[in-house]
Amino acid sequence: MKREELDVLVCRLPENVLYLSGYWPVSGMAVVVCPQAGQPVLLAADMEQEYMGKNRLADVRYFPWGTLSAGNPHDRIGRLLEHAARQFDWRGKKIGCEGSFETIAPALNSAEPGMLSSPSRSLLLHAFAVRRLHDATAILYEARRVKTEEDLKWLGITHEIAAFGLQAFAETLSPGKTEAEVAAAVEAAVSVHGHGYKGMQHVRAWAQVMSGERTAGAYSPFPATTHRTIRPGELAVLELAVVADGYWADLTRTRAAGYATDAQRNAYEAIMQAHAAVKRALRAGTAGSAIDSIARRVIAEAGYGDSFPHMTGHGLGFKYHEPAPLLHPDCDALLEPGMVTSIEPGIYIRGEWGMRVEENAVIQAGDPLYLSAFPTDLL
Amino acid sequence: MKREELDVLVCRLPENVLYLSGYWPVSGMAVVVCPQAGQPVLLAADMEQEYMGKNRLADVRYFPWGTLSAGNPHDRIGRLLEHAARQFDWRGKKIGCEGSFETIAPALNSAEPGMLSSPSRSLLLHAFAVRRLHDATAILYEARRVKTEEDLKWLGITHEIAAFGLQAFAETLSPGKTEAEVAAAVEAAVSVHGHGYKGMQHVRAWAQVMSGERTAGAYSPFPATTHRTIRPGELAVLELAVVADGYWADLTRTRAAGYATDAQRNAYEAIMQAHAAVKRALRAGTAGSAIDSIARRVIAEAGYGDSFPHMTGHGLGFKYHEPAPLLHPDCDALLEPGMVTSIEPGIYIRGEWGMRVEENAVIQAGDPLYLSAFPTDLL
Repeated sequence: MKREELDVLVCRLPENVLYLSGYWPVSGMAVVVCPQAGQPVLLAADMEQEYMGKNRLADVRYFPWGTLSAGNPHDRIGRLLEHAARQFDWRGKKIGCEGSFETIAPALNSAEPGMLSSPSRSLLLHAFAVRRLHDATAILYEARRVKTEEDLKWLGITHEIAAFGLQAFAETLSPGKTEAEVAAAVEAAVSVHGHGYKGMQHVRAWAQVMSGERTAGAYSPFPATTHRTIRPGELAVLELAVVADGYWADLTRTRAAGYATDAQRNAYEAIMQAHAAVKRALRAGTAGSAIDSIARRVIAEAGYGDSFPHMTGHGLGFKYHEPAPLLHPDCDALLEPGMVTSIEPGIYIRGEWGMRVEENAVIQAGDPLYLSAFPTDLL
Repeated sequence: MKREELDVLVCRLPENVLYLSGYWPVSGMAVVVCPQAGQPVLLAADMEQEYMGKNRLADVRYFPWGTLSAGNPHDRIGRLLEHAARQFDWRGKKIGCEGSFETIAPALNSAEPGMLSSPSRSLLLHAFAVRRLHDATAILYEARRVKTEEDLKWLGITHEIAAFGLQAFAETLSPGKTEAEVAAAVEAAVSVHGHGYKGMQHVRAWAQVMSGERTAGAYSPFPATTHRTIRPGELAVLELAVVADGYWADLTRTRAAGYATDAQRNAYEAIMQAHAAVKRALRAGTAGSAIDSIARRVIAEAGYGDSFPHMTGHGLGFKYHEPAPLLHPDCDALLEPGMVTSIEPGIYIRGEWGMRVEENAVIQAGDPLYLSAFPTDLL
């Protein structure tokens, strides 16, 4: 904020409310106002007080919401913002907002996420008595790329919760099951064992399962589950997103329903060798492109050079995908301690099958810390 | 669009892509360009071709996405938009966008929804060679408020799928279960039985379960599930959102785990009487406020006048909540045939318990058509 000469940063996306306060909104209706000098202010819906155990901010101001007498929450938020702006002399200052977030991490209510749209923008302009807002997206992503020890603690627990889903995948996948049955078992395991696990309050999983020849398309950014029945000897790919109190895991496992062909075993071996090679090299000071190159070379040397069409990894933590770091051929930025990255080499044979194993790790000065510890057996 | 002198409308929110094309994006990366005169153009990710069975538009243009060779999808979309704008002479015209959507219905990938943010706005300004975009939010919501026969067919099937979840709630709720176990069973039933049901491809449920004294707060816009164990004789409230190929159901059921007190039975009877009174009056030409008043009077006459703090209903269909119609004390707009509304009287006794039953119905010239047919037994 100092570098950008930004006086005040106003955030309403759940991922940034979490980053700045430790509190992950349930309904998505909360705002953090963070001045360059002074204490931040958190505005939150009064009915969410029971969910604010992880909030670190001292100055919390509540607005009523959800009842007839509460009126329009935007009006209430606008009045609270204007009051704080007058109290701390923020009016007319340089105000930053989340101007360029094109994807967002939803609040717990992922069925209907909120966005920063024209009404919210007008409200900010009025409350802070300014004519324009400054886009603070880049500094938010930059600041968030390195996770604190506390963030890593919560991310670690989130990955322990995600392991319940990986366990359910291993136990449930068998011939005769549909993709939807396997996916539902994974999501249920995360929810049943995740709620309340080591103090995590709010948990949700998104399990996408592709089987048989559909796995050849599993490099899709979001491979969709269907009601297809899994047959003996087919592969199934599980793409699993888990959120716990706002912290995200992004994991993939591939398993064979009963048995696998030699070609599938060879390809899987190449993927696991790529993982091993990445693990040896992954540390602070290395370029993302160098790590991508290591994974890509192992897979090419195994004869699958044309069958790994996506990048090797991406940042995550405050959302499913974050822009730093990227383990991508074109990304020469150096890895830094505290970054969290996915590692997800895959091989996809058009018309036949595909496979991927995705892990998440914390970058350190020395060896990386893998957040995901669940086995990766193909069978 | 004629009234607003809008030449071209550009939509990228999944709910409006669905409304204008019939296609519900899986990843959320699709655009519909709809001119006032001429044929609309749909831009979609090439890997989603298998999911476009319900698309009604003839002019579909694909962009690659998700692989290294595909490059940045925004650049690809920008080029396709500029090409179409030149082809149809749309450059420099009055261009409408989704400027004021503050909540959105996510694509199937509800773990990471997309928004119309500064980069997308810049891309539109460039592609259409204009200096500003016009906010078309109001005309979109206005046009969408009345559903077509085809929309109602899909909504009907969505509600049949939601009934699998209501059935699971009735079967699963019992003393000793946790809220999370009940919610997971509901979500699993919707997913397992919903995928492929009557041709629906993509299905997801959000089941929130509150039990015991927590039900007193179930008027919250999104009552959060916990790992609380349900005890004999406690109430449980299920708030259930279901989406199937982009069409939404929003239903609530209340059940007692084993037995209910006389006070609870009386309150429940009042809620069901409010439903019956609304059903008799709900038709085109009636004001939303009049329907709210009918439900509110029944509940007040039963002695619970201070315990029904929220509106009686809201629009839905292309998302979980839509702004028209509203069954709200302050909304005097008249109901119209083809509107879809929730009806959700509730009673909440502070510190003790709460209950709500929510149905969804289509407004008609005569008797309303209830989309939800599943029983409402308290026990």
